[in-house]
Amino acid sequence: MPDIKNADELFKDFKAQSVSEFFKKNAAMLGYTGKIRSLTTLVHEGVTNALDACEEAGILPEIFVRIDELGTEHYRVTIEDNASGIPLEYIPQVFGRMLAGSKAHRNIQSRGQQGIGVSGAVMFSQVTTGKPTIVHTSTGGKYIFTGKVQLDVKHNVGEIVEKEKIHNKWGWRGTIISLEAKDILYNKSRYSPYNYLRMTSIANPHAQITFIEPDGTRILFERSTHTMPKLPKPIKPHPYGITPDDLLTMSGNTNKKSLGQFLEKDFVRISASKVAEIGRQSGVSMKMRPDKLTWDEAERVVKAFKSMKFFAPPTEGLRPIGDEEIQKGLESTLSPEFSHTITRAPQTYRGGILFVVEVGIAYGGKSGKGGIEIIRYANRAPLIFDQGGCAITEAVKSIDWKRYNVRDVEKIPLTIFINLVSTHVPYTSAGKQAIADEEEIFAEIRNALMDGGRSLSRYLAGKRRLYEKRSKMNTLLRYVPETARALARLSNKEQDTIEERLATLITERYQIDQVEEDETDEQ
Amino acid sequence: MPDIKNADELFKDFKAQSVSEFFKKNAAMLGYTGKIRSLTTLVHEGVTNALDACEEAGILPEIFVRIDELGTEHYRVTIEDNASGIPLEYIPQVFGRMLAGSKAHRNIQSRGQQGIGVSGAVMFSQVTTGKPTIVHTSTGGKYIFTGKVQLDVKHNVGEIVEKEKIHNKWGWRGTIISLEAKDILYNKSRYSPYNYLRMTSIANPHAQITFIEPDGTRILFERSTHTMPKLPKPIKPHPYGITPDDLLTMSGNTNKKSLGQFLEKDFVRISASKVAEIGRQSGVSMKMRPDKLTWDEAERVVKAFKSMKFFAPPTEGLRPIGDEEIQKGLESTLSPEFSHTITRAPQTYRGGILFVVEVGIAYGGKSGKGGIEIIRYANRAPLIFDQGGCAITEAVKSIDWKRYNVRDVEKIPLTIFINLVSTHVPYTSAGKQAIADEEEIFAEIRNALMDGGRSLSRYLAGKRRLYEKRSKMNTLLRYVPETARALARLSNKEQDTIEERLATLITERYQIDQVEEDETDEQ
Repeated sequence: MPDIKNADELFKDFKAQSVSEFFKKNAAMLGYTGKIRSLTTLVHEGVTNALDACEEAGILPEIFVRIDELGTEHYRVTIEDNASGIPLEYIPQVFGRMLAGSKAHRNIQSRGQQGIGVSGAVMFSQVTTGKPTIVHTSTGGKYIFTGKVQLDVKHNVGEIVEKEKIHNKWGWRGTIISLEAKDILYNKSRYSPYNYLRMTSIANPHAQITFIEPDGTRILFERSTHTMPKLPKPIKPHPYGITPDDLLTMSGNTNKKSLGQFLEKDFVRISASKVAEIGRQSGVSMKMRPDKLTWDEAERVVKAFKSMKFFAPPTEGLRPIGDEEIQKGLESTLSPEFSHTITRAPQTYRGGILFVVEVGIAYGGKSGKGGIEIIRYANRAPLIFDQGGCAITEAVKSIDWKRYNVRDVEKIPLTIFINLVSTHVPYTSAGKQAIADEEEIFAEIRNALMDGGRSLSRYLAGKRRLYEKRSKMNTLLRYVPETARALARLSNKEQDTIEERLATLITERYQIDQVEEDETDEQ
Repeated sequence: MPDIKNADELFKDFKAQSVSEFFKKNAAMLGYTGKIRSLTTLVHEGVTNALDACEEAGILPEIFVRIDELGTEHYRVTIEDNASGIPLEYIPQVFGRMLAGSKAHRNIQSRGQQGIGVSGAVMFSQVTTGKPTIVHTSTGGKYIFTGKVQLDVKHNVGEIVEKEKIHNKWGWRGTIISLEAKDILYNKSRYSPYNYLRMTSIANPHAQITFIEPDGTRILFERSTHTMPKLPKPIKPHPYGITPDDLLTMSGNTNKKSLGQFLEKDFVRISASKVAEIGRQSGVSMKMRPDKLTWDEAERVVKAFKSMKFFAPPTEGLRPIGDEEIQKGLESTLSPEFSHTITRAPQTYRGGILFVVEVGIAYGGKSGKGGIEIIRYANRAPLIFDQGGCAITEAVKSIDWKRYNVRDVEKIPLTIFINLVSTHVPYTSAGKQAIADEEEIFAEIRNALMDGGRSLSRYLAGKRRLYEKRSKMNTLLRYVPETARALARLSNKEQDTIEERLATLITERYQIDQVEEDETDEQ
């Protein structure tokens, strides 16, 4: 076999690459595919970061987005927020290093969760223009810092190539990032930054977003509420959501002195008496040092968890948008004939990861566009790409809409708004545009949709009854002249008067019905 | 504003994580979502690695896959290949370190391209069972090495926790990996390891795969050809596919002394005279040291590339399956009434990344199952998940099948086989189950489908004509007795004889037509 290559020859090319090199080669995984999508992804990364930063700091967001056209398929994107600002020493890490961030290791609801997004934007800019990203930031102190940041792709570290500080005469606080990119294109399609910001505004009624398009048009997405949503809280893990591997990782890092103390303090819903029961059931000593736990013991502890009853995880950590705000959002953008919103009770997937599903259904007005339009969100961030590969889409498709009085699914003017809220959204890709098919999430979305479907069904049935009654009324009205003539002859009264009275009688009866209809429908 | 948190407080939690930590938290991105899919993903990673290893070494693959059920939702997966084996020192890197491999930085067609897959499998095993993966390997030398490998997730490095060597009395060469996992499930659905291997066998007719199911059933997917496909070759980059950033990365790493030499030797289709033209057009000295190239100069060189004519990239580097082998695969698995295959000429996307689209269309027999069934491949590896988010599916959906004589798209028994071959497949996610929407790839798939559609259309039209002729013949045959009676009376002959002759005449005429039909159809 002369052609066979041996192992040493084959392995001489073996090399490791950095995570930045990986995503540079596979930029499509971060959403950098196609000229329009790439530009929207840049805006998306900047805006989600800005909104998260404001929320973490407890500040009502004022976001400013500007896109300047610098040449053919060459733009500058500038995003400003009024959040807490970034301490100088963190700038290279925040903007220039992938998988670095403050969100990935906290069990808290936020738009970002990976520490990849904004570094990915800096990388895309650098790879297409060779230029660093300019960051201006101040924590509200004496200075405003300006740094030009770039990625050392090979080593996945950020570098400030130029920095400057000026006196903060204005007491300004916030962050501005400004980056250039080529091979991108601005338009106003469904996949554009414009629509992305519009959708962001619907799900974030507390945020004010100003957008300046390349042609200079200024668009203000005004906030419809001045109430700051309550801050999401970090949630300790629940015993049902823990694998032996998680338990070992946690027990290796805890500062608690005994296993029992560790279980009681580092988890929710584990009381001292539960600790004793875990000890009995697992046969593992609750007095042992947590860092001495073995895999086998961890498996026994987790088995004990599964066989015991615990209260459901506390839900105050999650912050859904809420029925009222969703309703406002749908009404202001779609002016529907009918709308209905559902915020379901929190559930868990994979045993213990908290999530909430919110659904809004809007019918008529500007809803739908030849069939069902789905608008998807995860933690209030719009998902506008990869619709086909998303569990939300699958759930909508799995509903038999005909059962809900929808006669022609292809044509019904229906918009379905869905927001998945979770401390950890199971995205299918680092580009964060589609949700993986987790059984419990799929089932919850279906439940919410069926709830919405029933309500829609009542409305449509009412509408149909109304239509039928109106036809009946029109038929009756058609006979009025003849009947009036006959009655006039029999009673020797004026035909005109009788005709008028008959018509009023029929119309009034119909109107009472209509009010009744409206009352039962809107519930 | 007493509730506002300041930056120092917010950033105290800022941390970096390793790529292994990232994928551990986001295992869905690697395909570990759902019990059935997780098991299939384990098999997929092992088998693609095995096939790649055989092909690289020029060895006809003999793959052995065994799944043992060890408890409830607890299995052992064992995969053996007869490839070149792995030198001992590379074991921790191959199996325990993400983003390490020999494929990512070579411009060559292979199933794996990331250096994530098999380390991801080792991680999933470790996270669900706490156990290392057992690797037996020999390069055919004196010893067989056995190593137990695990991942240090926090630092993304692999460790051998136990090793052993025995004398290789048998002269065995190859690799066996054996890993356990929990929370997974074996069944025989479309998404199962069984179907995965069946699909692998269709697209890899040179591979022999033996599969032992948990209940002991032994399934042999025999090779249908003993010809080893030609080895794919690494392809040097083509000037049209290069960005200024790529050029700078390459010029920083080359050992060539001048820019001109670098362009001529490290690219395809750049001759000495082209170098001179690049120099003239860009105004960049071709005598400069490559590592001194600036961004601005790189941009000018790339601009010169785009304005010049170069031969298309050489195509011998790509190895499509080929019409004949696809046909064999479809016939042996589907026994269709009609089939047609198309291997298109190589094209490039993003300027210069080579790809080829192959399509097979099978109608009737076991094809389709109530409508169009799509079977997708990338570099001969089956894509069985994320169908909805894949450019291949979008392309199939974008075809108006009614134009190709398909009357009922919902019911037609049609299977469409599509294989995308490329030196770099643009996957949407690290799980490698869907292809990103690159314009040129989408267009090529459509072209191939339209070609297949035309052929299908001719077949279906023939089938319809045949049906119409058969109806006409039956009508004629119905009149035979009456005509025969009339003729018998006129001619004074036996009615029976005339009847028989008439029937034969009509039937024969019809049969001649049928042969003609077959001949024109099958072209």
